[in-house]
Amino acid sequence: MAARAFAKAILRGVFILAAALTMVSMFGQTQPPVQRYSLVIGLRPEKIEYYKKLHAAAWPGVLKKIKECHIQNYSIYLQEVEKGKFYLFSYFEYTGEDFEADMAKMAADPLTQKWWKETEPCQIPISRRGPKEWWSRMEEVFHLD
Amino acid sequence: MAARAFAKAILRGVFILAAALTMVSMFGQTQPPVQRYSLVIGLRPEKIEYYKKLHAAAWPGVLKKIKECHIQNYSIYLQEVEKGKFYLFSYFEYTGEDFEADMAKMAADPLTQKWWKETEPCQIPISRRGPKEWWSRMEEVFHLD
Repeated sequence: MAARAFAKAILRGVFILAAALTMVSMFGQTQPPVQRYSLVIGLRPEKIEYYKKLHAAAWPGVLKKIKECHIQNYSIYLQEVEKGKFYLFSYFEYTGEDFEADMAKMAADPLTQKWWKETEPCQIPISRRGPKEWWSRMEEVFHLD
Repeated sequence: MAARAFAKAILRGVFILAAALTMVSMFGQTQPPVQRYSLVIGLRPEKIEYYKKLHAAAWPGVLKKIKECHIQNYSIYLQEVEKGKFYLFSYFEYTGEDFEADMAKMAADPLTQKWWKETEPCQIPISRRGPKEWWSRMEEVFHLD
């Protein structure tokens, strides 16, 4: 009987631990502190094929730096929004604590600078862009988790 | 000694269970079968405030129907892409198995139809839209998880 009581006590304790680990893991996965960003910029029609080719095989070091700067679920979309005028629309999620500092870190990376020497001549910033912007941030008017 | 061996065996078994539960929970959360969509449409300048107001307090029944149709992480962004020309860009993730069928289900919902009677007069489809499109789908040229 003592053995059974001892085993029961251990069993109860370890089940509580299992439940706690499961909950920590679930909450850790489903509720990261995410800030959503969406940016827009023009794309020169004659550069579309080159831009797509570059991004179909983006440089691994550039992708690694993006991840290091706490960016995840990053997509870029293309559409001919007005006749002959093409725009790129990006969406990504930022999980760090200092976006400005992470962007400065990215901008200081020599390989990223080299990548931008390829991509920037393809792009045309919108006329309404902010003083320090290349891509322009958009306003979020709706969100549903 | 028998009690200790018994307790040890239970301890080992329940730790394996705890580890298994944690892993199931982690993988279940991080790898849903997601298809990303991004759409674009124009927004009439004189309707911007009304459109924003509508979406700041979107109807609960409309949101419920969106979820029922397997759409998650749904955002809409706004920017003045060209002088005096405003565009809405949407991004969402589809987790169902038949997108066409889910969209038909949404379109058949009377409350969603009523909602669209409010939103559609605010919007201007792009000239390049497909035959059955209202919002136009964009092409994904880059993605990083």
